Amino acid sequence: MFSHNFIYILDLIGCIACAAAAASLAKKVGLDFLGAIMIAAIGAIGGGTCRDLLIDRHPLFWLIDLNYLIVVSITAITVQIFYYQVEKFFARPLVFFDAIGLAAFAVIGFEAALSKGFAYPIVVLMGVVTAVNGGIMRDIVCRQIPLVLREEIYITCAICGGIVFLILLKLDCEIWLRDIVSLSVTFLLRLLAIKKKWNLPSITIAEKKHLKNQ
Amino acid sequence: MFSHNFIYILDLIGCIACAAAAASLAKKVGLDFLGAIMIAAIGAIGGGTCRDLLIDRHPLFWLIDLNYLIVVSITAITVQIFYYQVEKFFARPLVFFDAIGLAAFAVIGFEAALSKGFAYPIVVLMGVVTAVNGGIMRDIVCRQIPLVLREEIYITCAICGGIVFLILLKLDCEIWLRDIVSLSVTFLLRLLAIKKKWNLPSITIAEKKHLKNQ
Amino acid sequence: MFSHNFIYILDLIGCIACAAAAASLAKKVGLDFLGAIMIAAIGAIGGGTCRDLLIDRHPLFWLIDLNYLIVVSITAITVQIFYYQVEKFFARPLVFFDAIGLAAFAVIGFEAALSKGFAYPIVVLMGVVTAVNGGIMRDIVCRQIPLVLREEIYITCAICGGIVFLILLKLDCEIWLRDIVSLSVTFLLRLLAIKKKWNLPSITIAEKKHLKNQ
Repeated sequence: MFSHNFIYILDLIGCIACAAAAASLAKKVGLDFLGAIMIAAIGAIGGGTCRDLLIDRHPLFWLIDLNYLIVVSITAITVQIFYYQVEKFFARPLVFFDAIGLAAFAVIGFEAALSKGFAYPIVVLMGVVTAVNGGIMRDIVCRQIPLVLREEIYITCAICGGIVFLILLKLDCEIWLRDIVSLSVTFLLRLLAIKKKWNLPSITIAEKKHLKNQ
Repeated sequence: MFSHNFIYILDLIGCIACAAAAASLAKKVGLDFLGAIMIAAIGAIGGGTCRDLLIDRHPLFWLIDLNYLIVVSITAITVQIFYYQVEKFFARPLVFFDAIGLAAFAVIGFEAALSKGFAYPIVVLMGVVTAVNGGIMRDIVCRQIPLVLREEIYITCAICGGIVFLILLKLDCEIWLRDIVSLSVTFLLRLLAIKKKWNLPSITIAEKKHLKNQ
Repeated sequence: MFSHNFIYILDLIGCIACAAAAASLAKKVGLDFLGAIMIAAIGAIGGGTCRDLLIDRHPLFWLIDLNYLIVVSITAITVQIFYYQVEKFFARPLVFFDAIGLAAFAVIGFEAALSKGFAYPIVVLMGVVTAVNGGIMRDIVCRQIPLVLREEIYITCAICGGIVFLILLKLDCEIWLRDIVSLSVTFLLRLLAIKKKWNLPSITIAEKKHLKNQ
């Protein structure tokens, strides 16, 4: 129960971070006030919505728990009003909150797929979908090539968290423990990835040779 | 019953307007004949489809009532054939029909969410989703930054219609009355917004100061 | 039973072709290794996913049959590693496999919609959705105007296959026969379209006159 409430709060913190990032992007591409709220909602709750549609889990969480939309709307409005201040003073804290969100979203995705009885690879995948699809859809609407698919170690962190989650599940760990540990692994890995500026290496062979031949 | 049929007809008129706008955009971005029909379908029935997927309302309206696809296909083909004539002579009537569609789509969305027993903010939101998501998806496929999120008062009209809808619901108005009144409010507000060229103001503070400093 | 297994194998071949095309596009637009796998999955199983969400057919096929994700992942990784070799030596075979995929996807879509009891136009449409939506979503994420909506005869082949399918259904053909025949028609039409470089003609009238006047 404690871990459930703890993850719920981290989930809302993640929604704030995602909504803030989306509202900031909305401002950059010239969306209006209500457009920014819609993009913020897509960025914050779009991943979980995708997951629930894919695994047929109804009603959607944000349709019955209005806290999500309230948190997202307030965040989007605040970021619109204090756009320059947020950009200036909150860029670094937002990265931190965003990592919390990634971790919380992923663990919620693992649990959701597990509760529906899906196979282990699907459990990990649904954590990834929850964590990244909101950002992907936000970038698509704002006509960016999705950042999470391009540069940053983001999906990797969720996958590693998922593997830890599955190991703890196999070890018959208690729910709160496997949730907290896999959440922490995802979160710390993400922070480390940002700090060390990790990127996935290209796995294409003969690239240099090819370039030389041109 | 009368109001139901009345709204159904307005709904189809809205589909025609949305399909025409989408088919015209398809022509501009160089889609072929069948691509234009697909975009027209996305623009016209995509919003209602999004809503029904989100609130888990199956089967989708256009899967069991083929009138929607027939109307959309005929419109898309006609607009493709008479593209230059439509652009020249029907640009203004289409704006008018589009406003009818916005209003009809929104009211249908309110009623759909209400019939599923969702909270009032969700009722309003589902009207907005029905009214704007088709246009958003159309613009995404055609690689435009969605117009409704950017410039025009569109979402605002649907929200105002939704507030009127909820007030009449609270006042225990009969269904036909609350539908017609909220539809009219949405429609008239949209016409007024076009006529007066209303835009949502930017709510960002200290923007000018920021620009001065640069 | 035989035809079922036969179509299942063609379906997986189609998934390989779609995943390879998507992974290759992912490389071109600069996605990383895991991003390429996600795009490959969207391209290969996105169409069937769209179809199943629209007709409310759960659980989704790739959630319970992991072969799809395995085939897609292996293909995406292989194409990433041997990108230049694939581009050089496999461009032509891939077009061939892609035509197999189009045909298999379409027939699977027809059968899926039919098994849910939808009207004939919906049956054809669901074949089209299965065949093209994966490619459309792949192009949207990679910020391309969807190719299948633009230039090539792709939807047309699926529609023709669908008409043949419906005729054989009306003639009370056995399932395996109607599947194999409509699959073959779709496949051969697609090969012919590629060979002859067929495009849909523009149906807009007075286009030349309009251009002359400018």
